This record gives sequence, C-alpha cells and structure tokens, in this order.
Amino acid sequence: MQNAYQKMDTAELKAAIAELEREVEETRAKELKLDMARGKPSPEQVNISRPMLDILTSDADLMDEGVDCSNYGCFEGIPSARRLAGEFIGVPPEQTIVLGSSSLNIMQSILIHYWEKGVPGYTPWSKLDHVKFLCPAPGYDRHFGITQDLGIENVPVRMTETGPDMDEVERLLAEDDSIKGMFCVPKYSNPTGVTYSEETVRRLATCKAAPDFRIVWDNAYAVHDLTDDGDKLANIFDIAREAGNEDRILGVASTSKITFPGAGIAFFGSSPANVVEVANTLKVGLISANKLNQLMHTRFLPDLDAVHEHMRKHAEFLRPRFDAVERKLSEGLGGTGCATWTHPNGGYFVSFDGPEGSAKRIAALCAELGVKLTPAGATWPYGNDPHDTNIRIAPTYPSVDELEAALDVLVLATKLVSAQLALEER
Amino acid sequence: MQNAYQKMDTAELKAAIAELEREVEETRAKELKLDMARGKPSPEQVNISRPMLDILTSDADLMDEGVDCSNYGCFEGIPSARRLAGEFIGVPPEQTIVLGSSSLNIMQSILIHYWEKGVPGYTPWSKLDHVKFLCPAPGYDRHFGITQDLGIENVPVRMTETGPDMDEVERLLAEDDSIKGMFCVPKYSNPTGVTYSEETVRRLATCKAAPDFRIVWDNAYAVHDLTDDGDKLANIFDIAREAGNEDRILGVASTSKITFPGAGIAFFGSSPANVVEVANTLKVGLISANKLNQLMHTRFLPDLDAVHEHMRKHAEFLRPRFDAVERKLSEGLGGTGCATWTHPNGGYFVSFDGPEGSAKRIAALCAELGVKLTPAGATWPYGNDPHDTNIRIAPTYPSVDELEAALDVLVLATKLVSAQLALEER
Repeated sequence: MQNAYQKMDTAELKAAIAELEREVEETRAKELKLDMARGKPSPEQVNISRPMLDILTSDADLMDEGVDCSNYGCFEGIPSARRLAGEFIGVPPEQTIVLGSSSLNIMQSILIHYWEKGVPGYTPWSKLDHVKFLCPAPGYDRHFGITQDLGIENVPVRMTETGPDMDEVERLLAEDDSIKGMFCVPKYSNPTGVTYSEETVRRLATCKAAPDFRIVWDNAYAVHDLTDDGDKLANIFDIAREAGNEDRILGVASTSKITFPGAGIAFFGSSPANVVEVANTLKVGLISANKLNQLMHTRFLPDLDAVHEHMRKHAEFLRPRFDAVERKLSEGLGGTGCATWTHPNGGYFVSFDGPEGSAKRIAALCAELGVKLTPAGATWPYGNDPHDTNIRIAPTYPSVDELEAALDVLVLATKLVSAQLALEER
Repeated sequence: MQNAYQKMDTAELKAAIAELEREVEETRAKELKLDMARGKPSPEQVNISRPMLDILTSDADLMDEGVDCSNYGCFEGIPSARRLAGEFIGVPPEQTIVLGSSSLNIMQSILIHYWEKGVPGYTPWSKLDHVKFLCPAPGYDRHFGITQDLGIENVPVRMTETGPDMDEVERLLAEDDSIKGMFCVPKYSNPTGVTYSEETVRRLATCKAAPDFRIVWDNAYAVHDLTDDGDKLANIFDIAREAGNEDRILGVASTSKITFPGAGIAFFGSSPANVVEVANTLKVGLISANKLNQLMHTRFLPDLDAVHEHMRKHAEFLRPRFDAVERKLSEGLGGTGCATWTHPNGGYFVSFDGPEGSAKRIAALCAELGVKLTPAGATWPYGNDPHDTNIRIAPTYPSVDELEAALDVLVLATKLVSAQLALEER
C-alpha cells in the first residue's frame, strides 16, 4: 500500500514538499517549547490527590489494625495496604508485599536476586552462559534497562492487538531455555495501550518454558480507564495456579499514577513461596518501608471501589487529551496512509507508527521545532526499532492547547518526512 | 583478674549459685515480657515528630525552589534536602543524593553495583577469586548482612575506645588487596557508642589500600547526642580529598532516628565522581524518590540547627534510659569483675561484655525470664563472637520502669552465669 506521497508524480511531490517546508519554517518561527516525552500527569491532574495530604495530622491515629505505622516493623506492609495490594494484583493479601516507591525498584531487586542466587533450586542466572528476556515491543524502556544493565539479552517480540505475538513467544520458549523471563504490561500496555486478551493471558500462564522462567507482570495501568467501560484483564494468577505455574508470575503495581508520581506506594504479589522468598531477599537491604505513606494512602483509598472513584477524576483530565490525539491525527493524517496509531481505552500512551525509516527523522524534526518526544527507538530493546517507525506519544502532561499545538507539529513532521522519503526512494 | 565468683571457695560459690537460682525462680514467676532487642525509639519519643505531619496539607505549596515535589523528576533529591544532606554528611549539596528509606538500601545498591560492575576502572568484585570487607566488631549486624548476602567474606576487626584497631586495619590492608571495603559507624558506633578519634579518621582516609577499596561511612548517629556536649567527629571527606582519596568514602545517613523510623529520608554523599556514578546506577531502578516526604522533612527541619534543636527533645527521652543502664549495671555488677560496659554520649546502644563464654547463656537465661535481647553474637560477623562475651543493650524502646526491670534480669542472669562458669572451670 502506497501512501499519498508515494502516489504523487515527482512534480506534484516536489511541490508538496516545498509547501510542507514552508509550513515548517512558519512553525519554527513560533519558537514552541512543548513536551510530549514522558508519562507524567499534568499538574492539575496531580492536584486531584491533594486531599490525601490532610489525612495524617499531628493528632491522627497512626495505628493500622494493631500496627504502629510511626515506628520500625511490619516489613511486608501494613494490613490495610496489603489488602488493597491483593485487590490490585489479584491475589490474597497474605501473598503481597507493600513497599514505598517504586514498583520498578521491586522488579530490579528481584531480578538482581535471581541473577545472583537464582530462582530457588536453579542455577543463578549470572552463572549461565547466556540469559535472555522476552521484551514485547514497542514496550517500556525502563523495563528493558533493568535487564540490559545486568547483561541479560533483551529479545524483542512484536506486540499485536491482543498482546505479544504468542506464537512467537511459544516458539522461542520451546526452543531456547536460556530465556528466563519476560516483561509484560498486560493492561493498557506502554505504549500501545493494548490489553492482553484472555487467550494471551492463558497462553502466558500455561505455555512450556524453562522451570525458572519468570514473567514480570507489571500491571501499572490496572485501574487507569478512560471511561467506565474499561478493558478487562483476566486474572493470570488463577490460571497459572491451576496449571501448576503459580511461581511463574511476579505481579507488581503502584499508586504512582493514582496519587503522587514518585511518592506512591508499590505492590508486589505472587505465589506464597515467592512472597516469602522475595521478602527475605528484600529484608537484607531494608528494615521497613514508609508505613506512614501506606497509611495515608489506604485512609484516602481504602479499597478498589474508592480507587475507581478516584480514577474517574483522573479520566476527566485524560479523556480530552486522548481525544485530542485521535482528532488531530485523524484530521492531519487520516487517509494519507502515512501513519497508524493506537486508540487505547486507558493508560498513558498512544503508539504511533510512521513510514519505514521515518521515526528518527520525525522526532528530530519535531525537536528542531520545539516539540520534545520520547526518543525514537526507545520503545525497543537497545533503542533499536528494526523498521524505525515507532514513536511513543505521551499526551498527559501538556495542557490540551499545548498538546494540540504539539500534535500539529507531529503531523507536519510526519507529512514532510513521508514526502521526503517518497522522493528519496525514486 | 578473677571475678567475684572465681575468688570464692567452692562452698561459698555453691551457696551463691543457690541464692541466685532462687532469685531466678522468683523472677520467672513474674512472667515478664520485656524487649531490649532493637534500636527503636519509644512511642512517646516518636511522637516528638508528629508536628511534621501538619506541614503538608491540601493547600500547601508543593514546590521546593522551583522543583515540583508532587510529580516525577529531580532524581538526586530536592534542593532543600540536598542542602541538609550536605550539612549532615559534610560535603557540598551537589555531592549528595537524597532518596526515601533507607540508607541501608543505598549501601546495598552501591555494593551490589561494585559487585556486578566494579569500582570504575577496576574488575567487578564478583569476578575476583575472593573479596573481603573489614567489619569493626562489635558492630552492626545489618551491615554484615549486606556483604554476607553477596558472598563477600566479613573480616572482624576489634573496636577500641578510639574506633577500629587501626594498627590491625593498616596491617590487613597493606598485605591483602582482596579487602575491598570496610563498614564504619564513626559516631556513637553501633553498639559501643564509640566516636572515632581524629587520628582514626585520618588513618582511615589516608592509609594504603587497594585502589578500589571503599569505606561505607554510615553516620547514622551524626546528631544523636545525649547532651549539648556531644562527641565531635572529624570530617573524613576533607582529609580524604587532601590525600587524593576522596573516592574512597561513601557517606550515608538518614532521618529514621530523627523523625519517623522507616519513614525518613536517606542521604548519600561522596566525591563528585562517585555521586554521578551512583546516581546513574540508582536511576536504572528508580524514576524519582518520594519528594513530598523530602519536602515535609525540610520544612520541619530546614537546617542542621533545627535538627539539633529537635534532637534535644529526643535526648530528653534517651538520657533517663541511658542513665538507668549505667545505674542498674553499676549497682548490680560494679566491683564484681563480671562485666564491663560502655558509657556513650549518644547513639542508641550500650555494649556489654560478660565473662568469656557467657553471652549466649546470659541471653538465653534472659529470654527464659521474659527479657528479649539482640541475639548474642549478632554484633559479630556470622554471629561468631570469638569469646562469646558481647551483648548489645538497646535501651531506647521500653519505658524507664520496663527498662529497669529488664536490666535487673540482665544483672541477675550475668551473675548466675558468671557463678556457674566459675564452678564449671574448677
């Protein structure tokens, strides 16, 4: 399928490029300074959680069901927070650990532990000739960073509309037992916004794999629906347990994008054996986490119903931004064949694909014009997007006006780069 | 030097044991339940910090000198907190990193980093045949736990009244370049309460050692004076810099025993190069720390003067407890020759030594009588107190009445075990 510029004859194409270049110069003259780079809520959105700051005062009761939150102790987390964690992750409260920021930190600690000591009963990963992790791509750069830092090879697996390509995942796992893990953001995946289908969840929980294969199940956007009719994610822990694979799943989540980014509480949930083992591991480097922050959170958000109610307020801020992305991209690029993008029902991102070989040039042109994007390629392991098409759009931080201005620039840059590529390939 | 029981003739000694055994049975009948095990402040003492909880309210300004503390960003810590960290550690603010809980966690992350990747320019410790750490003993069990967990050999060095035995430290470092680090609690050392002399600090900063030798300088009790006339600690960073060893010193501290245990903020301070390297390392697993907690802390305790003022309130609680230890031990054991103990001017502990071979038996008898102590031996690497003499007294958590009751039991147990040992050695 040719795009609109590829279909033009060369004279038409050159004229189109000249016109787009003129628009670029007009835009450049505006000296914009806009940021669509990271998944941060806007300041107004963050303010939704300010009432939480009034909860713990000097005369507050700092006990949580018999636990003194103002002193050392209760490593696994306070009772109310473990109950909330259980609801979040989909396991009983006693199969959870609640710490401070962040879930990324918990994932890293666990993978370092397996690297040093191995999954119980198996060789430490550091003693193996080669260790690989499957990385659904486009995916989350900070996941890939943890394994890359340890010297684990990150193997991309293409995302589909129902989650990672499971035929590929099963083929790789069946033939290569050096694959010891896989990162998953199963709901409103970063950046595609895809929620894994029940079949994908089932295949992940039950497929053949090395006995010390572990899935990092990062449910970062578990409650981040844009509407009341959000995506539904199957409970992987239930399916894995039935299949005898309950130790395979390492669940994490946090409140960083529910209350205050960086100042949230982080949840770990897994099998009973994993929780004991992970707690013993983490205790080496921590006496106990910030339980006052846990208490403040659970008094503000005592259960999942309260969380959903709170998330509706977030959605009020997010919906117009996601709508703006859809509208601006449709208006600017719809029917051109130059780009595709996702239409998520929640999460923090839209995944955008331009023509082959375009993403780095589009991002560079946007940067020139004052619009900061997540670096092109960042959504692939080692920054290596094999077709150089993918750009992660993070629409949450700017105001709607700023966002629209930034999207106009992205549309313009995509058109010009698409046209230039069409000319260059002649 | 014989103790009072060793000097008795056998008949006297047997009579003394019978009398002590009678007292033990009386005590047992009381069914005490007392805890002198961990360095926790009492609930009343923790309450000193409750006014801090009133500072951040829903209408508070959440900016710190241009940094939005309610959103992601500012990995190294907010400006006001880095300034406080600099004062604490004794380095400029830009040579600090401020995170959430805990300093133990920072130490562990850095040592894991050197284990995996090495001190920059040198072989990763994990690739060496053997790595050792010097552990001043009696010392802090959780320090020893970090290195033990990595498979590093913990080598005890005896504590003296001026810090670790520096002749021994220098001798070991000169002859063995597999020694890659050392743990130090330089002020009110855990558990002896000793503050390192200026000469000790100087020798640590300047002595010959492997180029990738690192000192974990855990100034956990930097401001924890019992009186206004507290011990003074020399600035090791200044001395190390002059000697060209500024990368040797890894400074940490925290507010866990200033505000709320477990819910404090943690400080790292070191050379400019180390701070950059450690920040880049920690960023792999953390986007940004809990900056709201940092802001709450620095609004409550904006500088070291405010901290000292706050610590005077802590001292009001601690002084009667340390006085009770001194009084009860002097009254009960003074002149018997059965025990020695330290007389610290600050910190959280008193170090107690009974006769050779007594500590485990004393602790076991105390436990039988309802008094929980830190496990005997815990103050030595691998729990292996070579002469089985040392017990860590943690007097801060119980009320003064409870503490006195617990100390009566410790005195009684020490007497009976000393007498039994005197009889057994005949």
